[in-house]
Amino acid sequence: MKIYGESRRTIWIAADSWGVEVIDQTRLPFEVETKVLRSMAAAAEAIRTMVVRGAPLIGATGAYGLALAMREDPSDANLAEAHATLLATRPTAVNLRWALDDVAGRLAPMAPSERMSAAYRRAAEICDEDVESCRSIGRHGLEIIRGLWEKKGKPDRFDVLTHCNAGWLATIDWGTALAPIYMAYEAGIPVHVWVDETRPRNQGASLTAFELGQHGVDHTVIADNLGGHLMQHGQVDMAIVGSDRTTAAGDVCNKIGTYLKALAAHDNGVPFYAALPYTTIDWSLSDGVEEIPIEERDGRELSHITGRTEDGSLATVDILPRGSRVANFGFDVTPARLVTGLITERGVCAASREGLRGLYPEVAG
Amino acid sequence: MKIYGESRRTIWIAADSWGVEVIDQTRLPFEVETKVLRSMAAAAEAIRTMVVRGAPLIGATGAYGLALAMREDPSDANLAEAHATLLATRPTAVNLRWALDDVAGRLAPMAPSERMSAAYRRAAEICDEDVESCRSIGRHGLEIIRGLWEKKGKPDRFDVLTHCNAGWLATIDWGTALAPIYMAYEAGIPVHVWVDETRPRNQGASLTAFELGQHGVDHTVIADNLGGHLMQHGQVDMAIVGSDRTTAAGDVCNKIGTYLKALAAHDNGVPFYAALPYTTIDWSLSDGVEEIPIEERDGRELSHITGRTEDGSLATVDILPRGSRVANFGFDVTPARLVTGLITERGVCAASREGLRGLYPEVAG
Repeated sequence: MKIYGESRRTIWIAADSWGVEVIDQTRLPFEVETKVLRSMAAAAEAIRTMVVRGAPLIGATGAYGLALAMREDPSDANLAEAHATLLATRPTAVNLRWALDDVAGRLAPMAPSERMSAAYRRAAEICDEDVESCRSIGRHGLEIIRGLWEKKGKPDRFDVLTHCNAGWLATIDWGTALAPIYMAYEAGIPVHVWVDETRPRNQGASLTAFELGQHGVDHTVIADNLGGHLMQHGQVDMAIVGSDRTTAAGDVCNKIGTYLKALAAHDNGVPFYAALPYTTIDWSLSDGVEEIPIEERDGRELSHITGRTEDGSLATVDILPRGSRVANFGFDVTPARLVTGLITERGVCAASREGLRGLYPEVAG
Repeated sequence: MKIYGESRRTIWIAADSWGVEVIDQTRLPFEVETKVLRSMAAAAEAIRTMVVRGAPLIGATGAYGLALAMREDPSDANLAEAHATLLATRPTAVNLRWALDDVAGRLAPMAPSERMSAAYRRAAEICDEDVESCRSIGRHGLEIIRGLWEKKGKPDRFDVLTHCNAGWLATIDWGTALAPIYMAYEAGIPVHVWVDETRPRNQGASLTAFELGQHGVDHTVIADNLGGHLMQHGQVDMAIVGSDRTTAAGDVCNKIGTYLKALAAHDNGVPFYAALPYTTIDWSLSDGVEEIPIEERDGRELSHITGRTEDGSLATVDILPRGSRVANFGFDVTPARLVTGLITERGVCAASREGLRGLYPEVAG
């Protein structure tokens, strides 16, 4: 997708042809800066400090982190150590473990001298596979948007609400929830996006609004409190969100607040979809509310906010009274009964065991 | 209620025995400062700039504004002009019109020489009446809390969720939604309050958390996105919110986002109450979602946030990407079907035409 008119990915090989360059997402939306990662330690630090975030992008950075490690020392010992170090940066990120296991598993049987180039090659493949997966999600989602838009008589504006950032910045390109929106935009459907601010980390206001704006997609930032009112008044044609973890029964674990929007969509007959790659499906789980442990995060994400002061410099402010406690859970679970459908790289299915079995007969058992 | 251990109201007669002193709510929670209003113009300015806010407090300030006007010039012409000037400060505030009409209606037949003292007297009465009304709401709400707490086996912590600020800072003392909580606290019930941050103006984080903390009530500030997750996991025993306007059928118009919490309460079997004085009931309305016009407010309320920097000074930051548009509606409507009951100064009733008719037979027709 585009930044300042230029097509970009979130991660690529730097001009020196071996460093790994990424967009520094901690500076968005205020500054577009990149960082070149030139050691395994730098890759680990980038994941830990959320210079890169979003499950697919974290996975890709981990894979490149192993390539950098092999450049430093391709021994068995260093491979094991790099794997452990990178995994520890975000222990709950499912994609990170998947990518590290995938790369390390391929490197282990090789001669040390072959490992570096094999790791670079596989990391690049992981990126390309993710782009293809997102592109497929986009194509399947586009058909839903097109169908709803046509059914409504092709109005001048088709309103999609999204929560958090499941856009190209969370992946390598295209995104998951935003891929269908970008495809609709490219197809000439007059899509307009209601962007939930997404407290407490504000990924909607700072990342989703930024990437939609840079690509030219019409959007409006709203408080997380507003979606229900808009749905009551017919101003939302559909909602699309991402998923960090999806149960075999179709429950969707996503950024905190997703459940509230799903309730409002259900109460007002608004189609509510989750867009996700198969890697987020956890086939071992059936009751998401009961079984998925929800990460409690640093209260500073709620109490402190960074923005631009009037003179253009950045400042971080504490918005709470002294002494007030905060609680900050990162995710909630939307029960499958509130989800109209799941959009995956293989197609669209009902948010149910049967629906997922239809798309993934080989794993759903 | 208390600030720094001292019992306070939000508005009172200053030490000079004629100025009207108020807490400057634009400085909360960072600084506790008061302002003495010594002219009608100063009272109007205080309402307009939200030095005072909350429907009952706005009404009381308007009443005192007329007293100040009569001190300046008790003529018929000035009475009419002051009424018009004060009313124009917040044209949608129902209580403001009620208070101004009440005071002006009493002053009009009097000799100009009697007007000033009569206006001061009536303004003081309006304040006292509001305190009594809130106290009654508190007593009735306390019985609901006590009943639920006892039914649960008197646990060590009873969790109440609230949205926005319907506390004593919005009234003269006690508050509406928070009055039952203060009474429960005084009665020794171990109440703990989940305080919704309440974007975009953050009245929960800046006012509700402040007033609960100052009075010693245990509380935790949470993102507006969190309430549904807490309810799914049995961590909310009841919800109490205020109401800016209530239809004859029991629909509740309150701060944006209230509807989403009511949906979650309903989905999880959590009792959801609205606490309100009869002055918020609009007997002419029956379908709140269809009939209540929702005020669209300045987008800066969403895009700009004020807080304390590390060196202790205050700063205002813009959190959005340049060029992103915002939409900011102040209220939403929670349909009566999602409201367990209404707590008024006369008692508790079902959120329905029949329920309200039972409490207000003389007006409900």
